[in-house]
Amino acid sequence: MSYISNKGSLLKRVETELSIASTEDKNLALKKVSESLEEYRSYILESNRKDIEIAEKNNMKPGLIDRLKLDNDRLDGIIEGINNIIELPDPIWKSDKVWTIENGLTISKMTVPLGVIGIVYESRPNVTVDAFSLALKSGNCIMLRGSSSAIHSNKALVKAIKEGLKASNLSEEVVQFIEEKDRKYVNEMLKANKYLDLIIPRGGKGLIDFIVENSSVPVLETGIGNCHIYVDEEADLEKALNIVNNAKTQRVGVCNACEKLLVHEAVADKFLPMIFEKLHKIVEIRGCKKTREIIKVEEAKESDWKEEYLDYIIAVKVVKDIDEGIEHVNTYGSKHSEAIITENLTNSQMFLRKVDASAVYVNASTRFTDGGEFGFGAEMGISTQKIHARGPVGLEQLVSYKYLVIGEGQIRK
Amino acid sequence: MSYISNKGSLLKRVETELSIASTEDKNLALKKVSESLEEYRSYILESNRKDIEIAEKNNMKPGLIDRLKLDNDRLDGIIEGINNIIELPDPIWKSDKVWTIENGLTISKMTVPLGVIGIVYESRPNVTVDAFSLALKSGNCIMLRGSSSAIHSNKALVKAIKEGLKASNLSEEVVQFIEEKDRKYVNEMLKANKYLDLIIPRGGKGLIDFIVENSSVPVLETGIGNCHIYVDEEADLEKALNIVNNAKTQRVGVCNACEKLLVHEAVADKFLPMIFEKLHKIVEIRGCKKTREIIKVEEAKESDWKEEYLDYIIAVKVVKDIDEGIEHVNTYGSKHSEAIITENLTNSQMFLRKVDASAVYVNASTRFTDGGEFGFGAEMGISTQKIHARGPVGLEQLVSYKYLVIGEGQIRK
Repeated sequence: MSYISNKGSLLKRVETELSIASTEDKNLALKKVSESLEEYRSYILESNRKDIEIAEKNNMKPGLIDRLKLDNDRLDGIIEGINNIIELPDPIWKSDKVWTIENGLTISKMTVPLGVIGIVYESRPNVTVDAFSLALKSGNCIMLRGSSSAIHSNKALVKAIKEGLKASNLSEEVVQFIEEKDRKYVNEMLKANKYLDLIIPRGGKGLIDFIVENSSVPVLETGIGNCHIYVDEEADLEKALNIVNNAKTQRVGVCNACEKLLVHEAVADKFLPMIFEKLHKIVEIRGCKKTREIIKVEEAKESDWKEEYLDYIIAVKVVKDIDEGIEHVNTYGSKHSEAIITENLTNSQMFLRKVDASAVYVNASTRFTDGGEFGFGAEMGISTQKIHARGPVGLEQLVSYKYLVIGEGQIRK
Repeated sequence: MSYISNKGSLLKRVETELSIASTEDKNLALKKVSESLEEYRSYILESNRKDIEIAEKNNMKPGLIDRLKLDNDRLDGIIEGINNIIELPDPIWKSDKVWTIENGLTISKMTVPLGVIGIVYESRPNVTVDAFSLALKSGNCIMLRGSSSAIHSNKALVKAIKEGLKASNLSEEVVQFIEEKDRKYVNEMLKANKYLDLIIPRGGKGLIDFIVENSSVPVLETGIGNCHIYVDEEADLEKALNIVNNAKTQRVGVCNACEKLLVHEAVADKFLPMIFEKLHKIVEIRGCKKTREIIKVEEAKESDWKEEYLDYIIAVKVVKDIDEGIEHVNTYGSKHSEAIITENLTNSQMFLRKVDASAVYVNASTRFTDGGEFGFGAEMGISTQKIHARGPVGLEQLVSYKYLVIGEGQIRK
């Protein structure tokens, strides 16, 4: 039996038990895990230092090293995250649809866990704990495959998780960590339909594209955000200025940050100098031909319209009308978060209806597309695909359902 | 541009228009299509005769020829199917969740079409019309790839559909038919993530497995049913007999038919002779060792437990308790439809909770897992996967959703 099959079998063996675990038992397990992380604090930080040392030796970029790093504050945050998940409602074995058909059969559509979720992720060791906690609370077993650069941190975190589970009423086997570094084990996970019900990639575009391309296990695509703000001819330009500034600069390395600005030509002469004034000292502005006739900025190339910068860069295009704006968004957007700034009702409705994205905004910053902001409490990522779950993936999105059909001997005629 | 890319681009061009089409326009289009099928009746039947002649020349099995065949009655059924879909509620742009977050942003979760659906199907030409009608009513464009054995029938049906659309307010381009016979075009569809949001295979296990294994477009797996009935020690045996007989023999070639019978050892001595008496004249019974100590039947091999017979065959296993029954179902079942026959409340609840399938029954025939029977009106197939949609896939399952976020200038702090 291969390494992945072996881990998969261990998960399958405890899948049913976890799927019917009581909320009390799941919350107790999470509590024990949070206590265990506290007990293992110095061991976890020490293990993380090993990863950091290796990363520095390998000349990893400072930004990436920062992502990898754990300290007391960050570990506090991780532990607090678990405690937040304990407070959230259990999404399992609930129904909003029960009906009776003509022959008297009663059908109930009940939420159930997905089963076993595989996560393939890069860098940040907090994902190890976050993903585990969300999976456990939603009754799902989990197979974790982190980055090899975080291997010591992740092993220590998983050890603490398993020790916590041992002190609970649930099996420590509900989480399996793939320690082997070889990339071939990722490939094996992608074909493990027998063991995995879903794979979630968390990382850069390269990782996500590789997994979508090669997985026969269903994939939940997350995280790429090439988000636009369209400033309509009937926009309140002060509002627009504030919103673009916030969506671009409040935090640049996140998927719901604004990457592109589309401006109706009727307000371009007025609005572009305002935005230039506001942003140019900290943001590199690139513009289309018409933009560059109004403000002095670098040229935006075709590739700019497709790119997710995750940086202090914005590309600006002047459009002749809302239709061109919508078409641009639907052509180049990543179906994540898109906004219109307008005071015109018809235009706002047209944008809401025609733009194809997980979240479509009127007069607000795109930065709100987030499980926490939406009130989901925590999230596994932001889905940019249309099947299963779209937008923030919280506990309620980590479920499937089944129909219970209760009869008294009914047969089909 | 390749053949598939070209067809995909045509669909993408009209996707937004169809996604916001009014119910009135969609219903008018369906009405015009049903009238057009009536007008093209003799052309369609004539084209079908060509397919039948070729199939006969190629010595196709009579059962398959029957599936391929159209006649006046079957065409009446197809046309009636469209009229039924006209009567169903439009699933698009509806919400059961609108809420306001602390800063005053109002968020509405609205249903939207998936976008473009690809269907790869075998034989039955009625799928051409059924799949198109369900897709159109749910605002989805569709790329159809039927069997080469039905090519003349499908071309005629698509011609009639497009003529109907020309007389409507919607574009005839919302449906694209893949005429090219080469299998490579299926492979190209499976990688067409740029154009397709979902692929639904309809056909045998070979086709479905091939598509799951090779598609990078999300797949909705449908149709394999290795369904069990477990007769508990506290079953009403008359009820059990009736239900097993119905689920096995009412129609054998369907995915919700019963393929396996599990009997608690405490009632095996009494129940097995009853079932033998009822079934043995028309059903081949295969049994485990213990079964064969009670009734004289052929031996069931390991492969029997996995197989979907779609025939007058049933395999019987005696189990020592409900736990063994549930474990057998979860090991060998296809997660389609599973039933327990019992008068015991605890056992019924345990079975409902622990069995992992799209529909779990107590004291009723598995034959009810069906969009029509469930009250969905019509179905695209029965999903046996856990993500997106499970069980009968009707109009309400052919949707995605998006969040509308309405503000007055809110920015993130």
